[in-house]
Order: sequence, then structure tokens, then C-alpha cells
Amino acid sequence: MNVCGKILMASVTLIAGLAFITIAAPAAGQPDQLESWNDGPVKNSLVDFVSRVTMEGSPDFVPTAERIAVFDNDGTLWAEQPIYFQVQFALDRVKAQAPKHPEWKQQQPFKALLEGDKKAFAAGGDKALLEVIAVSHAGMTTEEFNETVKDWIATATHPRFKKRYNEVVYQPMLELLAYLRANGFKTFIVSGGGVEFMRAWVEPIYGIPPEQVVGSVGKQKFELRNGKPALVKLPAVDFIDDKEGKPVGIQKFIGRHPILAFGNSDGDLQMLQWTAAGSGARFMGLVHHTDAEREWAYDRASPVGKLDKALDEAAANGWSVVDMKRNWKRLFPFDK
Amino acid sequence: MNVCGKILMASVTLIAGLAFITIAAPAAGQPDQLESWNDGPVKNSLVDFVSRVTMEGSPDFVPTAERIAVFDNDGTLWAEQPIYFQVQFALDRVKAQAPKHPEWKQQQPFKALLEGDKKAFAAGGDKALLEVIAVSHAGMTTEEFNETVKDWIATATHPRFKKRYNEVVYQPMLELLAYLRANGFKTFIVSGGGVEFMRAWVEPIYGIPPEQVVGSVGKQKFELRNGKPALVKLPAVDFIDDKEGKPVGIQKFIGRHPILAFGNSDGDLQMLQWTAAGSGARFMGLVHHTDAEREWAYDRASPVGKLDKALDEAAANGWSVVDMKRNWKRLFPFDK
Repeated sequence: MNVCGKILMASVTLIAGLAFITIAAPAAGQPDQLESWNDGPVKNSLVDFVSRVTMEGSPDFVPTAERIAVFDNDGTLWAEQPIYFQVQFALDRVKAQAPKHPEWKQQQPFKALLEGDKKAFAAGGDKALLEVIAVSHAGMTTEEFNETVKDWIATATHPRFKKRYNEVVYQPMLELLAYLRANGFKTFIVSGGGVEFMRAWVEPIYGIPPEQVVGSVGKQKFELRNGKPALVKLPAVDFIDDKEGKPVGIQKFIGRHPILAFGNSDGDLQMLQWTAAGSGARFMGLVHHTDAEREWAYDRASPVGKLDKALDEAAANGWSVVDMKRNWKRLFPFDK
Repeated sequence: MNVCGKILMASVTLIAGLAFITIAAPAAGQPDQLESWNDGPVKNSLVDFVSRVTMEGSPDFVPTAERIAVFDNDGTLWAEQPIYFQVQFALDRVKAQAPKHPEWKQQQPFKALLEGDKKAFAAGGDKALLEVIAVSHAGMTTEEFNETVKDWIATATHPRFKKRYNEVVYQPMLELLAYLRANGFKTFIVSGGGVEFMRAWVEPIYGIPPEQVVGSVGKQKFELRNGKPALVKLPAVDFIDDKEGKPVGIQKFIGRHPILAFGNSDGDLQMLQWTAAGSGARFMGLVHHTDAEREWAYDRASPVGKLDKALDEAAANGWSVVDMKRNWKRLFPFDK
């Protein structure tokens, strides 16, 4: 090997070494990949966990292929107040389509939506939501539905923050997703939300491709429309990816046991239990919404994003709980 | 930039250039990544397609994230004669469990299996198979089932080739999978076979991880067993990933339109139609089993892997048809 070759090899070794140091603990002068997280036990636990599972020779080492991280969406990656954003989408869609459906004025849950009784509707949970989505979009092709969601994301604004809904996402979680991927993790969404609703917009925001989004699913049918193959949405729910459905969804769509899971409500409890049940190092995290000033403060009694049993289990089992007010320096990408 | 820097940059440019040339058409002295394929129209179409969709600036260029390739399994990646290999697994499992289930002697389809009427059973198709799998494995956890499949793969031998079933895979297809991945494709299985049956063994053989395996699914339930979370198999079929189910499965599990699809039977017709229906460059391929000497010759009248309508559509639409006898130089990895 000539001198240039040696310089090249030395550079490669140095770069690899630096990358490793960055992973284990950001050295002075190195950029902090989790800069929107305040220093403290949650950030330390995350960095320590990632360091242990990625360090060759560590007793907790996990091969890259098995570094599966799963994240709830509503209330974990993006906000969920004053109502689940997908409920707002459904409301807007039902309003837009109502002139063609006079029967909806007398028919629940459309009646509640049209009369603006959002809270009552939201309390119906994912099932009522998915039924409205399914019924109001029946007969549409998957491509038409995709365009409808993209249009809504590009135009609707959040009532409090006056931003597009895909801007009301948590900056610390965007950093965590990128940090995990930089350390060989494959990041998945596992959400009660509709899978096609999420797939229409999440990739550029979270860096998570459609094939790594697990969610609730409506029934579909393959048919030839004017001789052209199409997938058409049917007015029925196929699978609800919430509570006990989340471990089932993980097994069905991913087929591997996650080693890291993050949620924020009782709907995520079973996903966290399932993650914790695997052998080897595990990280279970909950986002606790404690910041009424910058966002909202809610937990045990909230109709949206109720966090009660999972908070008790987190305390009992030593899972990490993000205190949003204390642990997150910056909440949204649009915050200064 | 100093001299070493310039040499380094020039090397990088050269290496990138060489890689590109290799992709477009293997230059003299370059290893042929599809060496088990005889030169001819199918191999040329494949190399031409990959070249067009990966060449920046080409009118057919497809960004890496959208290079989704889907492959059927039975008869496309591994053999399927004299009976689907998963039917053999089911038969072996039913025999092993029969002493505990005297009622199976009188109960179809178990009766047929126990009496050795394999062909009659195989004619029942994926549905009968999945029912047997579901019923005979009900109450097992997903981990127990996984171990059962791994044990079978490690011990059972193919009656004709006297090899493990996971050795009876097509060498040209292994090369094609690797070639596509080397060109930025993400490779998926989309098979009528049971998803958990495949996930137990495909990763080291095909280089396809569990989360990229789409297949038929049995119902499962999350529960606490002696306080420990478990996913337990229920005696019911959730989803059949065959015929019209294949495009539905692709949308549900992957959520992107494939640009390349390979199958071998009428069960793959709709997957090929759906792939062909997308805009932009597409590759649709069929494996035609024409080699009675090295493998089997069968198509329109075969009870297993019937290829009739799809063969007509391939001819009508210019899809690529592999003539196994002519196009494949070497069939199995164990062939010399």
C-alpha cells in the first residue's frame, strides 16, 4: 500500500472511530443528535440503551437486522389535541361530502360530526373514526384516497398553532427517529390511526417509508375498472391496530419482536408489555403530556389520549416516562 | 485539495463509474451477477429494465425508495412439486399430533392427510392448507410455532432431491434477488403460503427479512400466559394472500406499487396485472416449469401451480416468461 492508500485507510479508520464515539456519548465539540432533549434520566437512558445494543462485544449487543423500534403516532410523534387529527380529517371530509348524502343528517356517527359534536365523536375512539373513514370513502380507489389525504395535509391548519398538521410534530422525536436510524435501527410506526391516512404524508416528515407503517386497515377489493386494475375501498374495517391489536399488528406486519417501543396512552400498553417481554435489552418509553403552556397537560381523565394504567405500569416496571415540560427543550420544529 | 485527495476523489469517481458499467452490461472481466441465467431475451430484459430504472436522467428512472420488487415463493423461488412444501409440513405435523387427536381419523381434511391422499388435499389449495395449519397449531404461541417450523426445515428432506427443503431453491432467482438489491431494490415475498411459516426460514436463504414477507395470515390473540405476554394462534384464517388477495396484500402490507413482479401460476395473475397497471417502467415475469429432466414440466393442467390464464396474459401483454429448461443454466445451488 502506498502513502496515499495509508492516508485513505487511516482516514476511514478515524471516521469510523469518530462515528462510534458519537454514538456512545457525544464528545465535546461533536453535535448532539438529541439536541432538543434536556439532559436528564430519559435522555441518558436512551443514549445508554443505544450504546449497549450497538457496541460489538457488549453483552446486550443486538445485530442490526433485529434493531426494530416501534412508535405510536397520535400523541407520540405528532400532537392529538384538541381532537385526533384524523378525526378532523374525517369531519372535513364528511362536511365536504354531506350535500351528496342527505341521509347522514339523521345517521350516527355522521350526525354528531355534522352537528359539530367533536368531543362526543372522539370519545367513540378509533372504531367510530375508522367506520366513518370506511363508509365515507367506500368506492374510492386507494390512489384517490391518497390524493384526498395529501390535499387535506397541504391545506388544513391546526386551530391552535395555525400550522399545517404535519408541522405539529415533536422535534425531539424527529431527532430520536434519526438517531436510532443512524445507529442501525429500523423505525416503524404502530398506530391506531388508519394506515393509508398515515402513509400519504409520513415519509418526508418522519423518514419512515410506507412499508414501515403499521396501522388500522379498512377492507379493500381488487377489481378491473373499465379494464384497468384498481384497489377499491369497501365500507368495512379489517383490522384495528390498538390496545391488544398492537402486538398482533406487530407480529402480522413486522414479524419481529421490537427492542424499543414508545407510546403515550393506554392504547399503547400492550405494545409496551409485548416489547418488554422479549429477552435481552429493551427500552420502553411513554410521552407524558405535562406542558399546558407549550402544548397540553393531560393524562388519567382525558377523553383523547388517556394515560392511566400504562402510567402505573411504567412506574412499576421502570419504563422511561418523558415529562414533556421538563425533558423537552424545544417542542415543535416551528418553535424557536 | 492535495494530491492524495485528488487520487482519492478520482478513485471514488472511477469506482462509481465501474459500478455503473457493471449494472448496465457486465463488461469483459466483470463478474456476471446473473451467471446462472443463459443469455437470451429474458436475461436481456431484466438487465435492460434494471439499467433503465436506475440510470439518473433516464426517462424511466425510479428513485431508490420506490424500487419495490415482489416475488411469489412456491414455484417461483423454491420448488413446489410433488406437493407444496408447506403441505408436506402440515402432513408431518398432523401425523405427529394425530395420537392426541383421535377425532381427526373421521374429520376432513385431516382424514385425507392421515390416509396419505396428498394430491386430493393439495387440490384443496391454500384454503384447506391454511385451515389445517390454523387448527393443528391453535393454542401455540408464535414462538413455539416458529421453533416447530425451524425444526422441520432442519430435518425433513425432499423426496426426489434428498435435500433439505430450503436447499430446493432456484439459484437463478437467488442471483436475481441479490442483483436487484445491489441496484437499490427492496425485495419482498408475496406468497399464498403462511407468513409465519416463511418468516421462520427465508432470511438466511433469500436475504429477505421477516418484515418484507407478505403471506397468508392466521388469526392471533394477545394474552397474558402465567403473567407473561404471549401471542397465541387461533383456529381461524385471517387473510388469504392469493389471486385477488395478492394486490390487496401488497397494498395492506407494503403500501407501495411494485415496479417488478415475478410469479409462476394463475395465483399470481392479479399481482402481475396490478404491477403492470402502474405508470412508468415495469417488469412482469413468469417462471414456466418446462424442465422434466432437472425438475418438472407442468402448466395448464397441473393441480399444483396451475399456469393457464397467466400464460395467455403474458403472451398478450409481452410479459417475460422464463423457459426453465432453456433459460436457466443451473437450477439449484446443489447442482454442479
